[in-house]
Amino acid sequence: MASFDQSAFDAKLAKSQVASRSLAILKTKAKNEALEAIAQGLENSVSAIIEANAIDLANGDANGLSSGLLDRLLLNEARIAALSAAVRDIVKLTDPIGQVLRGMDMPNGVHLSQVRVPFGVVGAIYEARPNVTVDIAAIALKSGNAVLLRGGSAAENSNRVLVSVIQSALASVGLAPESVQTIDEFGREGAKALMAARGYVDVLIPRGSADLINTVVMESKVPVIETGAGVVHVYLDETADLANAVEIVHNSKVQRPSVCNALETLLVHEKLATSIVPILDRLRESGVTIHADDATRVIFPDSVPVEESDYATEHMSLDIAVKIVPDIDAAMDHIRRYSTKHTESILTEDYANAERFLAEVDAAVVMVNASTRFTDGGEFGFGAEVGISTQKLHARGPMGLQEITSTKWLARGDGQIRQ
Amino acid sequence: MASFDQSAFDAKLAKSQVASRSLAILKTKAKNEALEAIAQGLENSVSAIIEANAIDLANGDANGLSSGLLDRLLLNEARIAALSAAVRDIVKLTDPIGQVLRGMDMPNGVHLSQVRVPFGVVGAIYEARPNVTVDIAAIALKSGNAVLLRGGSAAENSNRVLVSVIQSALASVGLAPESVQTIDEFGREGAKALMAARGYVDVLIPRGSADLINTVVMESKVPVIETGAGVVHVYLDETADLANAVEIVHNSKVQRPSVCNALETLLVHEKLATSIVPILDRLRESGVTIHADDATRVIFPDSVPVEESDYATEHMSLDIAVKIVPDIDAAMDHIRRYSTKHTESILTEDYANAERFLAEVDAAVVMVNASTRFTDGGEFGFGAEVGISTQKLHARGPMGLQEITSTKWLARGDGQIRQ
Repeated sequence: MASFDQSAFDAKLAKSQVASRSLAILKTKAKNEALEAIAQGLENSVSAIIEANAIDLANGDANGLSSGLLDRLLLNEARIAALSAAVRDIVKLTDPIGQVLRGMDMPNGVHLSQVRVPFGVVGAIYEARPNVTVDIAAIALKSGNAVLLRGGSAAENSNRVLVSVIQSALASVGLAPESVQTIDEFGREGAKALMAARGYVDVLIPRGSADLINTVVMESKVPVIETGAGVVHVYLDETADLANAVEIVHNSKVQRPSVCNALETLLVHEKLATSIVPILDRLRESGVTIHADDATRVIFPDSVPVEESDYATEHMSLDIAVKIVPDIDAAMDHIRRYSTKHTESILTEDYANAERFLAEVDAAVVMVNASTRFTDGGEFGFGAEVGISTQKLHARGPMGLQEITSTKWLARGDGQIRQ
Repeated sequence: MASFDQSAFDAKLAKSQVASRSLAILKTKAKNEALEAIAQGLENSVSAIIEANAIDLANGDANGLSSGLLDRLLLNEARIAALSAAVRDIVKLTDPIGQVLRGMDMPNGVHLSQVRVPFGVVGAIYEARPNVTVDIAAIALKSGNAVLLRGGSAAENSNRVLVSVIQSALASVGLAPESVQTIDEFGREGAKALMAARGYVDVLIPRGSADLINTVVMESKVPVIETGAGVVHVYLDETADLANAVEIVHNSKVQRPSVCNALETLLVHEKLATSIVPILDRLRESGVTIHADDATRVIFPDSVPVEESDYATEHMSLDIAVKIVPDIDAAMDHIRRYSTKHTESILTEDYANAERFLAEVDAAVVMVNASTRFTDGGEFGFGAEVGISTQKLHARGPMGLQEITSTKWLARGDGQIRQ
């Protein structure tokens, strides 16, 4: 890797800014044409993409990447077709730009309206998932933002070809290719420069491991939208419907254990303790390891003793912690202590407890009698998903197109001055 | 000043968090009673407040504070009455908490609603303006947030008494006094600890000089809402109504030159150049120094030569830069280069140019034919004003109560699992 070239980096930044000005006023029809051109371009470039991806896979294999990471890295014909389809799905989504959020007249007749506008330049830092390159580029384009992508060295060859396909598609419909740029050639120093580019990059979105996100959050001078980890709880209240509970707990834990909305800890009201055997049996049948507290161990010996650290861990695997609690207050205390404020669900038939849980639990999504797996942009009807925000500023919960926009106020007067 | 006591600081943080949980579910009626008690408490404590303030004023005088800063620091009977009235004004504002922003049903029947909730714990860092202590405390209370105040050593005695009055008022209506706390006793180290308290403090609001805000933005690990400086422009387009222009330019510059929405640079279409003499005469009559470019100097010799640095300066004084430009594109180029993205106004009778300016200029508030002084929470009808955000994340432009809230999603199901 050559030494970092700040002026080459700044030149890319400047091109992103210029491109962002055109994108901000681009009509929806033109954005959709560009997206269609990108979808088509991906389909026309399958062999080039697979070829570049093969180099990344070989390098990854040589560098000892785990099979899970290699699978994330892999692009084959089916996956490229899925990427292309995902871009076409974004064509169908409502363009958030230009939407009027509020409006009113001042007493003196000045008309005020608050309209949705693009951020401008969006930065994305992610790891070894070339599909994110296409996802973020398409989402940024539809929301009128230029984007600077830092995809990481493991997917460098794949990303270079994908960005080149996207840029050719943009050029083919008369848009600036620099609307979508990669900074991978600048290596780690490029990522640092991106995080330092306050005033030039309007928002930074890290996607990937907790470590990556934490590094970006702590180091970035550019405002960050944090897509955080999920230490997700289900609390089985005294009056929970047990037949529902078996299914909801199983679905929350087992359907896709590697994602952030998967269940990590089951809290159980003590009066229900002996009734949870069918729930835990069902989990065991699916290969889930039960990390049980002492009270649960007595009821369900086919388990391992829970460690304090399990309660704070996002396992991303077929592991669950189980704890018996005396009441809803103890359950909420536990959640307050260990929650990453992503998704929390209570299973109850008691109206007052349901409303208390909804009101008092502090999380991006709080649920009653539903699987935690529903915290998802697709399930919420957003179409595209930029990630799930666990921060409280700007956006919280699943983020769709409108969550990567800003606003501005327009004031239309006819000569008014302030008294 | 004693050395920094981290455990004492952490204890205050923990108390804020506990208080925030009660505030989050407090009914509007109870919040309004607390605000009324605070207003009453201020009225009952006039002499104690003035006495403490006198110590700060004496110290400030001894430390060579400017007369401007000493004036900001001053609390007298009239100002305390105004503070009290401002608190009562907040009673009248709509409580933002509990408002439903969006809601929909999933196809499977899960009811989703996005509701407004408090941030939790809000930190405020500001300088030598004891009125901010009361303002922020009242705004935080109405929006259900606990608040940690760092008001700076120059107003330390005033702030201590004000916080004590507020805490007594809170206790008198049965609320936790720790809902409003000062950390002034921890000195500069306390401010640093506040900026480092990510995960404990939900948002930080700096108010004061550009230096203060910049320091907080660059150092804070807690998300910041930036209330920025205003290098504000008015562009006089070819077709501007000159009678309106005289008044709007004068009002924008002169009505209150020390605030962020005051005009700094007047850009003039070259075809109007000889017509601006009445505008500049009117400014000169009010004591404004005209920093003019060469073309303007020819037309209006009663001016000083503009320096490049003037264009980038928020003077906060009776100084204005004036520049002749060939067209609207040159005006927008100038604005893009020097704007702090606060407020920009075009004066024009041309429909297309008005719409172009509104669409293409990137600022918190973009205006046509109106004084830049209208960028203000009061003028926008928000009642209270937390500040004017010049960032693009979370809130942009004048911030009222709803801008210091977050949201969460509630999902009400009856046994749904994800397919």
